[in-house]
Amino acid sequence: MDVMSRSTVPSVQGSKTSHPATNAGAEASADAASAAGAGVGSDFLQLDIGQAPPGGRTAWLADRLRSAIADGRLPVGARLPASRVLAEELRVTRGVVTEAYRRLAESGQIAGRGRLGTVVVAAPAAPRVRATAMPRDQDRVRGAVPPGPGAALFGSGDREGVVDALRALPSRIDLSPGVPDLAAFPRTSWLRAERAVLAGATPADFGYGDPRGAAALRTAVVGWLARNRGIRADPDEVVVVAGVAQALGLLGQILAADGIRRIAVEDPGSLGARQQLEYVGHEIVPVPVDAAGLDVAALRAGGARAVLLTPAHQFPTGAVLDGERRRELLSWAADGGTVIEDDYDAEHRYDRPPVPALRSLVPEGVCYAGSVSKLLAPALRVGWLLVPQNRLDALVTAKRYADLGNGILTQLVLARLMDSGELERHLRHVRQRHRRRRDAMLRAIERHLPGAHVHGAAAGLHLTVTFGDPPGGARDGLRDTDLAAAALAQGVKAHPLSWHRITPGPPGLVLGYAAGPAHELDEGIAVIGSALRVLRG
Amino acid sequence: MDVMSRSTVPSVQGSKTSHPATNAGAEASADAASAAGAGVGSDFLQLDIGQAPPGGRTAWLADRLRSAIADGRLPVGARLPASRVLAEELRVTRGVVTEAYRRLAESGQIAGRGRLGTVVVAAPAAPRVRATAMPRDQDRVRGAVPPGPGAALFGSGDREGVVDALRALPSRIDLSPGVPDLAAFPRTSWLRAERAVLAGATPADFGYGDPRGAAALRTAVVGWLARNRGIRADPDEVVVVAGVAQALGLLGQILAADGIRRIAVEDPGSLGARQQLEYVGHEIVPVPVDAAGLDVAALRAGGARAVLLTPAHQFPTGAVLDGERRRELLSWAADGGTVIEDDYDAEHRYDRPPVPALRSLVPEGVCYAGSVSKLLAPALRVGWLLVPQNRLDALVTAKRYADLGNGILTQLVLARLMDSGELERHLRHVRQRHRRRRDAMLRAIERHLPGAHVHGAAAGLHLTVTFGDPPGGARDGLRDTDLAAAALAQGVKAHPLSWHRITPGPPGLVLGYAAGPAHELDEGIAVIGSALRVLRG
Repeated sequence: MDVMSRSTVPSVQGSKTSHPATNAGAEASADAASAAGAGVGSDFLQLDIGQAPPGGRTAWLADRLRSAIADGRLPVGARLPASRVLAEELRVTRGVVTEAYRRLAESGQIAGRGRLGTVVVAAPAAPRVRATAMPRDQDRVRGAVPPGPGAALFGSGDREGVVDALRALPSRIDLSPGVPDLAAFPRTSWLRAERAVLAGATPADFGYGDPRGAAALRTAVVGWLARNRGIRADPDEVVVVAGVAQALGLLGQILAADGIRRIAVEDPGSLGARQQLEYVGHEIVPVPVDAAGLDVAALRAGGARAVLLTPAHQFPTGAVLDGERRRELLSWAADGGTVIEDDYDAEHRYDRPPVPALRSLVPEGVCYAGSVSKLLAPALRVGWLLVPQNRLDALVTAKRYADLGNGILTQLVLARLMDSGELERHLRHVRQRHRRRRDAMLRAIERHLPGAHVHGAAAGLHLTVTFGDPPGGARDGLRDTDLAAAALAQGVKAHPLSWHRITPGPPGLVLGYAAGPAHELDEGIAVIGSALRVLRG
Repeated sequence: MDVMSRSTVPSVQGSKTSHPATNAGAEASADAASAAGAGVGSDFLQLDIGQAPPGGRTAWLADRLRSAIADGRLPVGARLPASRVLAEELRVTRGVVTEAYRRLAESGQIAGRGRLGTVVVAAPAAPRVRATAMPRDQDRVRGAVPPGPGAALFGSGDREGVVDALRALPSRIDLSPGVPDLAAFPRTSWLRAERAVLAGATPADFGYGDPRGAAALRTAVVGWLARNRGIRADPDEVVVVAGVAQALGLLGQILAADGIRRIAVEDPGSLGARQQLEYVGHEIVPVPVDAAGLDVAALRAGGARAVLLTPAHQFPTGAVLDGERRRELLSWAADGGTVIEDDYDAEHRYDRPPVPALRSLVPEGVCYAGSVSKLLAPALRVGWLLVPQNRLDALVTAKRYADLGNGILTQLVLARLMDSGELERHLRHVRQRHRRRRDAMLRAIERHLPGAHVHGAAAGLHLTVTFGDPPGGARDGLRDTDLAAAALAQGVKAHPLSWHRITPGPPGLVLGYAAGPAHELDEGIAVIGSALRVLRG
């Protein structure tokens, strides 16, 4: 069927361009004679002057504006087009528009606001669209305040969306883990780099790009990883992703397509990372973590063909995968296992030497994911993923279908900050701040949580505390979700350790110290301490 | 099992933070006494001074630097840390570092470059990592030049990745569809808005955010859609996505989870959109398009429970879904069908009145996707998706697991450009440029492609030409892939219409006119015209 010969714009719509090209020139001239550049009618409210009765255009226009104000399409504060512009688009005299505007101004609905133009200043009272139609149970998922702080959040065994829900709750003091000092975001450097990027970008940079990301950023990431993580790679091997969250989702997809349906994870380990893999259909195989990191013998025994781990700074315990475990793990990988290395906050160290990335030891056996979330800001949503050569095509395809690649401007700005050394300078700067806050939190824990055990404070942006049984020897059955709920009731957020456990274990809290000032840390820990005393009677 | 009680940083790593918190204060004091802010060792090359022999630190450091230069971790142009910074991080005297630097400078490997600091200037010749290990067949997928321009690209029936591959090829003149005038990107307005955003953002804006997107952008999008597309919505219903590509991927996922596995699409229709749905596992059901748009009777007959279409400006034919078809389609939706409205370039009109969005007529029956790709630039990767209320939770969850939400800065800048009216001004500006280019392309087609039929030139950023049989009456079996390959061999890119067809049909080309200047359009069409004459003998 020759659909194309009929696939013309219907003549009722006023187009003649379906005719053979011999007419095209005549058409173009006719077009040029009409109002230059404006289409027929205006996008603004989809005004089509053809619907106005002859001689009644002003009344018609005023009526259309009134309806739009009444039904909320033009809310208070909305700006109307300049009368000259709207007149051109509708191909009416400017007087038609100014007169319609004048009528609405007289009835008090719009007003001139000088440089801001003409804006809507009053609207008849009308129910907001859907403002009341939203079922309450959806609010929980999207993070509105549940009835009674923390009740829904910490009371149920369902952990789906709990981190987002906690994040969306108001609080005085936020001790959630995983966030650097956001007040230190280098706004001036960023703006300077953005100016240079906008001045230097080619038009093609604004078009559809390489799904792997901008070449400039892939090259900068290679330099960053070589200098700071001991990893040698070619820019062609780097795929820029929207943070480690997307990296895990894409890896989960390509592994599943390869027949791998079970992935081992650290227990305790990141709830978010685990959920990411479960969402794309994987069965999770928990593997215990001890002082030397992931228990590789248990990994072998579990039979999973892939493992996700945080070797440089285990989340949430802070353990470092030690030398012997590294050798065991790489031997497991050599036997066909796939290692996913989440290098999530390797750059934040205080009291210990740097740990090289697994990927720097075995380029071919390790999928490596990192991001700027802990270096600069999670909200940038930029990370990178390196996979073994035999998985690269599948990864690039997965990234293409995920979103066609990351946004360009953030990528180019980051590339400049990495190339110029400003990102390393920023890291040195925030590391000092983070270290002072870590120390302040340790002092606060000593003061307000005597007897608590502190884990993983030598590096990172958080530490973990666990609570032994109270003096006297009896086990007290403390639940860390109750403790977190009690703290939240007094305006202090923290993650119960049990959120990040698969196998049950002693109660604890995961406490971020990097985001807020020292006095808040002390106050927050004091609140937790008094809540703990109340719970223990 | 009490894993936490053992999950401490091993003491060999120098940490003492696993002890009960009663020691924390003493530790913190000890920390403060050591080099302020620096960890033990440097992230730079993961240098650990503990590995240096006593009295041999300078030689050790020089050796580590030489190795890194030799193995490519420090390529020519890489910058070394300032000697003061590195000395602090390694806790050595500055003389150790300056002496090591001096030795490498003497051997000609590094040099001082004033304000740039100390950089690598020469490296021993060494093979680049993996530079030769890359199999050639992967280059095709990732877009390197195939052997003989266009041979692999247009010769095979496999359309996977062809659009990306064509995009990555060099050309003199690019007539690929789907790209606005990128040279008109409002760099000055963007930078001004970015400055205001960076000045006004709160620290929390840089943290993990709402997976639906920034509230400011969701509110701005609601205003934009109300003014320009007749759509009334609440900001809580808007999900910001990484362009329509991601919107289709997410919709595909949530529909599949709901048991919908077959999606109807327009034929011809966008190859990219179709592939997006196929990638997430959908079977594609082609539905013919004619002058009135999608054939709704054929949609009903096909039995798919969801349909993706471009009602305002059908890609690639340019047809507008007419009133009767709209009524038929909405009646199909009322019977339980799911409509996915891709409103991809509704804003670009020249010779016809605006067409309201389907979503504006039936808020509850239509999933609506739009983006700034055609308004501003595809490389921004920002769009929006509205779904019926009963699918909103599933969509928000899918977006969360896709990437935790779009990057913040681009969102906040866009919100400002929408709220201030600058985006509407930009649209008026580019529409004039696009219209002139459309006219130039129509003239060029008249001149160089006599007898070609032009479709869909009343709106959009591209038009489609089809070729009737040559004068004399005999069918000549012209293949549009041959024509596109012949044009590419002379440096002109265009999409063969057959790429976007599912059911075979007459040959044609889809020709974008918005991206380049008028003289290129004429030259590009001239090349296509001469290629056509050669192919037809």
